[in-house]
Amino acid sequence: MASDLMDTMAATSVAIGQVLDKLLVVPAGPEARVQEAMRYAVFNGGKRLRPLLVLASADLFGVERQHALHVGAALECVHCYSLIHDDLPAMDDDDMRRGQPTVHKKFDEATAILAGDALLTLAFEILASTDTHPDPYVRLELVKSLAVASGGHGMVGGQMIDLTADDYDLDERAIFRLQYMKTGALLSFAVEAGAIMAHAGKKVRASLAGYARDLGLAYQIADDLLDALGDANVVGKATGKDADAGKATIVGILGIERAQQQAAILSQQAIDHLADFDKKAALLREIAEFAINRRA
Amino acid sequence: MASDLMDTMAATSVAIGQVLDKLLVVPAGPEARVQEAMRYAVFNGGKRLRPLLVLASADLFGVERQHALHVGAALECVHCYSLIHDDLPAMDDDDMRRGQPTVHKKFDEATAILAGDALLTLAFEILASTDTHPDPYVRLELVKSLAVASGGHGMVGGQMIDLTADDYDLDERAIFRLQYMKTGALLSFAVEAGAIMAHAGKKVRASLAGYARDLGLAYQIADDLLDALGDANVVGKATGKDADAGKATIVGILGIERAQQQAAILSQQAIDHLADFDKKAALLREIAEFAINRRA
Repeated sequence: MASDLMDTMAATSVAIGQVLDKLLVVPAGPEARVQEAMRYAVFNGGKRLRPLLVLASADLFGVERQHALHVGAALECVHCYSLIHDDLPAMDDDDMRRGQPTVHKKFDEATAILAGDALLTLAFEILASTDTHPDPYVRLELVKSLAVASGGHGMVGGQMIDLTADDYDLDERAIFRLQYMKTGALLSFAVEAGAIMAHAGKKVRASLAGYARDLGLAYQIADDLLDALGDANVVGKATGKDADAGKATIVGILGIERAQQQAAILSQQAIDHLADFDKKAALLREIAEFAINRRA
Repeated sequence: MASDLMDTMAATSVAIGQVLDKLLVVPAGPEARVQEAMRYAVFNGGKRLRPLLVLASADLFGVERQHALHVGAALECVHCYSLIHDDLPAMDDDDMRRGQPTVHKKFDEATAILAGDALLTLAFEILASTDTHPDPYVRLELVKSLAVASGGHGMVGGQMIDLTADDYDLDERAIFRLQYMKTGALLSFAVEAGAIMAHAGKKVRASLAGYARDLGLAYQIADDLLDALGDANVVGKATGKDADAGKATIVGILGIERAQQQAAILSQQAIDHLADFDKKAALLREIAEFAINRRA
């Protein structure tokens, strides 16, 4: 992995952390517990991949950095809420995430449910704010796009399919669709956010949508490969869970070797979608390589 | 209770039901289960009090009916999501609501969590849509106001306090604050929504905010009284739960008789805030009376 990307990721993580710190009020009053849980979930050493994608796509169009950071912060709130709820005993029942107790383990289930709810709500409050973008139509498009990407026909729908996959005989196509809904939809929002903020035209948006779609699938296959092959100490959470749970994954369908090939093909396809962009797209290209070469 | 109000409530319920039916896609695909649960939660014979308040406040200003119905539908989605999550075993652990199994009993806990998440998300998607209002600034103000009313410093914050009330020695003032956050904030949004849609001035908004604040507290005391005195068969859910759970309620602090007096005072205060409005406010006045005289 290029050290440039490592530096950029570290810098993005700091910048997003500062914005999130400002947006997540310091706990106070008898309701402090839910705010503490929100901060615990958000400041847990995550990679901030989604905000990085927002910044990378915003840089293609010279979008103001502060605006991109606010969209990235809102998106990270949605991502963190989804992790809190997915980790609950009734869902994936995970005790550890990134080497730390999950929110319901550190606090309790009720607090975890509420903290997730509040983070999801906060995301839309952030997007509606003038700090995010001066153009009201842009803010509204961001609200709508994020809602669609994360709702019952996006991320939540994908999680629903994943939980009930045993009841259906999902073929390869259905599993790709599931994975796109579960992970890809939010990544697509991240990549398209720059185009939305810059009022970019349809052709440019279509290229970015193609990049995002392939990146999302490559990323998910890499995730499944980490689960199948990874070391729990490096990955920071339990591995081998998908196979144990009989989950419908692309790796399960294709096998390890073909899944690795497929991830590499998707990563290259993602990069090919960026052909019309010049060196401004260098970061997006590096992220597509990182997606399949990461260790955690 | 005036039969006029009954008729209006019934008509509102039908109109809101039609809008919600259009907005909640008919279940399809392997993700159908979450959509089924969303519809089950939303079409459960609820009173649609919050949409009624939106319509009543919108009528003060001649706001177009279709716009008010969309705001009412979004608000009802938030209300229903909060009921699904509040009913979960980790929260209030309720098996029945309005005489029917709660969502996690009818489906399962994971589906209930996801259905709540998706309804909350859908609410913001609805508010961002042009069907809700042609003015983008109005839509953004609705998004922001609903997020604040329902988030960590509003409804969710109130629920957090309620769950941990045992850990704090809440005085009367703190309990009123808790109840306002838990129930009043969303009712306030409902009443102020009409003013937002009509670009009403500060003075008018202050009157409506005062009405909403007093109405919310009166409504919550009446709710607590129903819990303390009510018949489970009429109320449609378990009663006597607050006392059993040692919950911090206004009835618990004031006792039955003083709480009844307090609710009546608050209802009258709410009506007094409407002094500057003519007969267009008749419905809001009737609702303030209904809030404390209802049986369920």
